[in-house]
Amino acid sequence: MKHFTFNLIAQDGRGRAGTFQTPHGCISTPVFAPVGTQATVKALTPAQLEELGVTLLLANTYHLYLRPGADLISDMGGLHNFMNWNGPILTDSGGFQVFSLEDRREVSDRGVIFKSHLDGSEHEFTPENTIRMQEMLGADIIMVLDECATPYEREYNEQALERTHQWAERALAVKAREDQALIGIIQGGIFPDLRKRSAEFISSLDFPGVAIGGLSVGETKEEMYDILDVVEPILPKEKPRYLMGVGSPDDIVEAVWRGVDIFDCVLPTRMARNNAALTRTGRLNLRNAPYRSDRRPIDQQCSCYTCKNFSRAYVRHLIVAQEMLAASLLSIHNLQTLISLCNDLREAIIAGRLDKFVEEFRAHYQKHRPSET
Amino acid sequence: MKHFTFNLIAQDGRGRAGTFQTPHGCISTPVFAPVGTQATVKALTPAQLEELGVTLLLANTYHLYLRPGADLISDMGGLHNFMNWNGPILTDSGGFQVFSLEDRREVSDRGVIFKSHLDGSEHEFTPENTIRMQEMLGADIIMVLDECATPYEREYNEQALERTHQWAERALAVKAREDQALIGIIQGGIFPDLRKRSAEFISSLDFPGVAIGGLSVGETKEEMYDILDVVEPILPKEKPRYLMGVGSPDDIVEAVWRGVDIFDCVLPTRMARNNAALTRTGRLNLRNAPYRSDRRPIDQQCSCYTCKNFSRAYVRHLIVAQEMLAASLLSIHNLQTLISLCNDLREAIIAGRLDKFVEEFRAHYQKHRPSET
Repeated sequence: MKHFTFNLIAQDGRGRAGTFQTPHGCISTPVFAPVGTQATVKALTPAQLEELGVTLLLANTYHLYLRPGADLISDMGGLHNFMNWNGPILTDSGGFQVFSLEDRREVSDRGVIFKSHLDGSEHEFTPENTIRMQEMLGADIIMVLDECATPYEREYNEQALERTHQWAERALAVKAREDQALIGIIQGGIFPDLRKRSAEFISSLDFPGVAIGGLSVGETKEEMYDILDVVEPILPKEKPRYLMGVGSPDDIVEAVWRGVDIFDCVLPTRMARNNAALTRTGRLNLRNAPYRSDRRPIDQQCSCYTCKNFSRAYVRHLIVAQEMLAASLLSIHNLQTLISLCNDLREAIIAGRLDKFVEEFRAHYQKHRPSET
Repeated sequence: MKHFTFNLIAQDGRGRAGTFQTPHGCISTPVFAPVGTQATVKALTPAQLEELGVTLLLANTYHLYLRPGADLISDMGGLHNFMNWNGPILTDSGGFQVFSLEDRREVSDRGVIFKSHLDGSEHEFTPENTIRMQEMLGADIIMVLDECATPYEREYNEQALERTHQWAERALAVKAREDQALIGIIQGGIFPDLRKRSAEFISSLDFPGVAIGGLSVGETKEEMYDILDVVEPILPKEKPRYLMGVGSPDDIVEAVWRGVDIFDCVLPTRMARNNAALTRTGRLNLRNAPYRSDRRPIDQQCSCYTCKNFSRAYVRHLIVAQEMLAASLLSIHNLQTLISLCNDLREAIIAGRLDKFVEEFRAHYQKHRPSET
């Protein structure tokens, strides 16, 4: 039995509409995956995520390994059961978090030794043990450990790339569960030749999907789009492509237009907790005084629970009164914005009008970006 | 057209099962009303409240008057529309909050001048203007301004009672909206003769319901129950009776057994934010270590969303990881405990087995109270 099948339903230019079958359900792509760092998408219940039409969730191995522990989650029947999410889940390898710890890590070919941000205790991640941890967590899609270099340092990127490639082979070699898809990660900073080399190498290995890592980490948007332009022609058409950690509306549109299928990002839920609403034309800071008596929903075009039932004035009141419901209502809306954007991109690809959709989006997003209405 | 009708469906001893028809729907009594202080029940959406079977919500005039302002809520179409709750709402008069301000208030026959807890600004509540504010808010059930004395001071209680009675008459005289039921409040501390006098006076006025205030504010449970025993025979049978601010499982059972119909309390939602689960046999502090790997739901008998879908281990993880979802899941469960308790009390009254229900509850609640499982 084949646990994973990726089918391309339609292509329009580089844009792709597909279906990715996993043991916990089918994901229609392009897809945006909300982030549930600690086995919960902050401020939302799984029922609310389901109502939003979420199909794929991301959880962080680094955080779950430290707390409550992969062993505990395994004892509780795995992540799906533990957090009561019966759809597809993706876990990262923890690499991104550990390499963000800066002064608290030591890397070698064997792996990376780091100090916990919670209590300073020492731990080690290796290509092998992060696979075992992710096998204990039991997500549908799991990731190789990679070394995440800062985007502009050429020498470091060259070294890190070699290691990332070795680690990818070692991860593949130890992976045991057949009901999990292991995805390889392309690195290489902002250097086209390194990215090209990495895309070729990772594509040559037996991964059922490829990810592009190390973007949206400090480089400009144009640099990111340029890298996508370099990498895309190399990627196998028959495998899903995942752009890690990217999720603003404009980046999603530009990346789908350049052939990306899967996205995840903390942006929509983090913005929600910072009182900002995300729309297709920009963002609103709902704490601002003009919203005090604004009867309109956050976005008149939006069909989410928040926009169907609450005014900007009410959401602003919740923010000013420091009520938790503000974060929930804004998270619902912000996720809906990205989910419906992906749905519309998919439809545009199927209908063969992706260029037109992207063109209109660009005009509108630019035009309204700085505005607050 | 009559906007409010209270019908007694069944009586069993002093216990009563009724229906209270209001402009926004029918309330089956006994009923527990969750508190939405600032026009939101903390950490829950109105959709979640509906799913819980909540029929009556309480909101606080003091808080809403100060922020965002009764005028704003009125402009936004009233409280039902503002907070998207289309069922019955009850607002208090703000008296309890203002008289809790201790050093920041000055009371006279005219009313009470106080300093806002938000910014120290000076405001005045009178029997007349609190009715006008509540008319702007637009709840179905509104309350008279009363003077809340500390329960043990006889002299203060005598004076406060006189004033509370005057204020009740003045509130009745200015009330204008026919689609709001104004409820009078009985005071008198722990003094049976004062309580008797107050019950007689308030019952003699043309209120469609009577409330018992000033209890659960520092006196013992036995003193509270004794006061209910004194007051109950005086209360009109044909009007609903509301015991303000009371809502622990044992107090609800004892008060229903003594003829009370309506309850409200912050206890279930406040406990939730303090990591405690409320059950019919006591409470669990879910932060405690033994719950780390406890696969059981909070309460195996409970049918709420939380208990149907999540383990104690998961809720504990959310608490330890300081995730907002902990407060939401615990609020859902704690409210369900009180709502289903009221439903069961109602059924017991209708079936004529209230004494038996109360007896069993007492035995069980006492027995398990100190336990943590």
